[in-house]
Amino acid sequence: MTIEYDGRGFNGWQAQENGVSVQQILEDALKVFSGELQRVFGAGRTDAGVHALAQVAHFDLETDFEEYKIRDGLNSLVRPHLIAVISVQKVDEDFHSRFSATGRSYIYRIINRRAPAILDKGLAWWVPVPLDSDAMHEAAQVLIGKHDFTTFRSVACQAKSPHKTLDRLVVEREGDHIRFHVSARSFLHNQVRIMVGTLRLVGEGKWDAGDIVSALKACDRSRGGETAPPQGLYLTGVEYDGKTRSNQPQMKSFEIG
Amino acid sequence: MTIEYDGRGFNGWQAQENGVSVQQILEDALKVFSGELQRVFGAGRTDAGVHALAQVAHFDLETDFEEYKIRDGLNSLVRPHLIAVISVQKVDEDFHSRFSATGRSYIYRIINRRAPAILDKGLAWWVPVPLDSDAMHEAAQVLIGKHDFTTFRSVACQAKSPHKTLDRLVVEREGDHIRFHVSARSFLHNQVRIMVGTLRLVGEGKWDAGDIVSALKACDRSRGGETAPPQGLYLTGVEYDGKTRSNQPQMKSFEIG
Repeated sequence: MTIEYDGRGFNGWQAQENGVSVQQILEDALKVFSGELQRVFGAGRTDAGVHALAQVAHFDLETDFEEYKIRDGLNSLVRPHLIAVISVQKVDEDFHSRFSATGRSYIYRIINRRAPAILDKGLAWWVPVPLDSDAMHEAAQVLIGKHDFTTFRSVACQAKSPHKTLDRLVVEREGDHIRFHVSARSFLHNQVRIMVGTLRLVGEGKWDAGDIVSALKACDRSRGGETAPPQGLYLTGVEYDGKTRSNQPQMKSFEIG
Repeated sequence: MTIEYDGRGFNGWQAQENGVSVQQILEDALKVFSGELQRVFGAGRTDAGVHALAQVAHFDLETDFEEYKIRDGLNSLVRPHLIAVISVQKVDEDFHSRFSATGRSYIYRIINRRAPAILDKGLAWWVPVPLDSDAMHEAAQVLIGKHDFTTFRSVACQAKSPHKTLDRLVVEREGDHIRFHVSARSFLHNQVRIMVGTLRLVGEGKWDAGDIVSALKACDRSRGGETAPPQGLYLTGVEYDGKTRSNQPQMKSFEIG
C-alpha cells in the first residue's frame, strides 16, 4: 500500500515503546479490519516529524479481501490520526516493501524569507537569511555518486556500511520556496537532513563546493553542517523494478496570475 | 503591505464584535509598534476560514518608519497568530488598498480521491467522488465575461449590483489535486465558492455547460450549487495599475521523480 502522513502527529514510522508511530497505528487498524495480527513493513523508517507523500508498506493477510475494501477500511480505522492509505495493491509472495525497493525519493522544503512560514508552518524549514540556491545546487553535485557518507550520517546510524550512492540532488527555487529533490537506492540515518543543513552553509556564502568535498573526505560527522529539522522532509516515492510508486507527479502547486 | 494568513485561526478578515479577525490583530500590532491608533484597510474581505497568500492592506502613519522595520515589527507582534507581513511599501496619499485595486485573484483547491486529505487537511476541499476536471473547465467558460451573478452570490451579499465581469476561470488537475484559478476586478460575496460548488455538479456528470447557463440566467441563488467550504479558498494576488502584488509566482510545488 501507498501511504500519506503528516509527520507532526507521530514519533516516526517505527513502532516503539514511547510515542505514537505510524506503523503501530496501521497494525492496530489492520487487526481490527481483518482480525489478523500482522506486521506492517515500511520501505523507509522516517524519523519523528518527517512527512510522507508516498511511503510504501506491505503486509501479509490470510484472508482474501478486495484491495479497495482494505484501503477504505483502514482509512476509516486510522482516524483521527493524520494517515491515509492512498492505494492498496496485491503483490507476489516474495515482494518486500523494504528489501525489494530499488530507489527512494525525498523532497526537502525551505521557506526562505524574512517573514515566518504561515501556511507552511510545520511543513517546511523557515530560514530567514538569504540563501543562494544556485550555489547550493552547484555545490551539491560533488555529492553525487558513490561515497563514504560518514560526515552526513547521524552518529546513531546503525547501517553496517557508510557507503551509499547518491543518484540525484537538485536544488531549485521558486519565489521564497527552495526545494531539494534527492534520490538514491537507500540513505543513511539523517543523511538528507545533514546534506541540507550543510548546503545551507553554501547558500549563506560561508562555504563553497570545495568545503563540501573536504567535509565529505574527512568522514567525520563533526565536519558536516547542522541536521536540518524534520518538518521540511517528505518521503515522496519508492521505486520497485524501475517503477516509482509515488503519490502524484506534482503536488500543491499554486500558480498565480 | 502584502500579508499571508492561515484562515483557520480567524473569523475572517474584517474586525467584528465576535471572534478574532486578521484586521483587528494587525491594527493592535500597529498600535503597539507605532503608538498610533490607525485603521488597516484590506483589498478583499475574506470570510472565516479563507486563506490568503497575498492579501494587500494599507494604513496611514504620522511617524515615518523604514519599511523593513514595520514588516519585522508587525511580524514579531502578531505572534502566535498565523499571520505574516511579507512586504511593506510606501505608497502615495491617494492609494487605497480596496478602491485602487483593479483585479483580484483567487485559487480554489480540491483534493479529489477516495483517501481523506492529510497534509492538505484544512488547506483544501476533500471530494471523494471522481470529478472530470476537463468538463468542469469547459463548462466554466460560459461564466467568463459580464453577467448578473445573482445565482452565484450569497443571499447575505450587500453589493449594490449583482453585475460583475469574470476575467478568468481555469480548472486544472495534477494527480489528485484540482485547482481553480479565478480572476476578476471584484467579486460578489461567496461568488468563487458558489461557482466551485456548482461546477462540482459538472465534474460529477450531473450537470453540463447548458445547466450552468440556465442557472446563471435564472438569477436565483437557489438554482446554483452548494457553497464550497472556505478551507479550499486562497486570495493569491491583488492588482494595481496593471501590476499584481502576489506572494510569488508558484507555491508549494512538489515535483516528484
